[in-house]
Amino acid sequence: MVFTTKSVKFAIKLNKMNVNIRKATEKDSGQMLSLIHELAVFEKEPDAVQITEKDLKKYGFGKNSLFKTFIAEEEGETLGMALFYDRFSTWVGKSLHLEDLIVREQHRKKGVGKALFTKFFEYAYENGYNRAEWAVLDWNTPAVNFYKDAGATVYDDWQICQIDRSGIEKYLSR
Amino acid sequence: MVFTTKSVKFAIKLNKMNVNIRKATEKDSGQMLSLIHELAVFEKEPDAVQITEKDLKKYGFGKNSLFKTFIAEEEGETLGMALFYDRFSTWVGKSLHLEDLIVREQHRKKGVGKALFTKFFEYAYENGYNRAEWAVLDWNTPAVNFYKDAGATVYDDWQICQIDRSGIEKYLSR
Repeated sequence: MVFTTKSVKFAIKLNKMNVNIRKATEKDSGQMLSLIHELAVFEKEPDAVQITEKDLKKYGFGKNSLFKTFIAEEEGETLGMALFYDRFSTWVGKSLHLEDLIVREQHRKKGVGKALFTKFFEYAYENGYNRAEWAVLDWNTPAVNFYKDAGATVYDDWQICQIDRSGIEKYLSR
Repeated sequence: MVFTTKSVKFAIKLNKMNVNIRKATEKDSGQMLSLIHELAVFEKEPDAVQITEKDLKKYGFGKNSLFKTFIAEEEGETLGMALFYDRFSTWVGKSLHLEDLIVREQHRKKGVGKALFTKFFEYAYENGYNRAEWAVLDWNTPAVNFYKDAGATVYDDWQICQIDRSGIEKYLSR
């Protein structure tokens, strides 16, 4: 694995693959949405994806974007992506959150996910973040083990709470 | 409870209190840090707070701030705060994350937390967010029950992973 610091270029040569990792552009939005759908199927929520390609273009690019994305590709074929954004911890300050790390099924177990994950860490380190964080499903044992091996702490005492827009509306109209 | 929509003003009259909720300004940073310390003690991590008042001023205010804060106060005394920021869900889009909801110990169980929480929901709803989210410690039963009563889903199959800057450095230097 070879990577140049202070650069978004990141290349791996692994299993005879020649994978390039680069920042996403608007043109990647279609492939990104396709990857998001693939992850939703893997996470047993195939109908959960409500966003559109237009949303990805609107929120993923430009000055006030809500997230950044690295794309892994080989000879123009999109193999996977890492999608992440800023958070703020009132304990340690600037934190970088990995929302999605996705590799197409036929390209898994070749090191592509690890390369994207490493690129995410590199970005966090070079840009002065004090923490990196993400969430994992407890039944996804290979992922849990990979993250523990990477040095992360996996917390089992925090629970994630979510409410959708209609739930918020219902609460506010009580 | 009375609140005016399309406004940051939010007043509650409860238990003979006259609480006002407003957006924080830089001048609140000292009180905010004090509240953050109080929460760390409650969460059994009294030494976890590494950020300073300067960090709160730097990241909490101005055009490129990483978070927003509502302050609950009564006659100039800070009773609590809600600190929150944008996230992006690749399933539903714009999401508002509640990082900290803190009420000073002597002012708990008077409705101040609920008022801040409601204000957070109001902000999310009025600004077009499709989801609100936060995390809760599983042993904090009153909070878990409050959130469930509010209509939130509390997930027990997601685990939070975190790594600090030194851990990232260690990983990258492998």
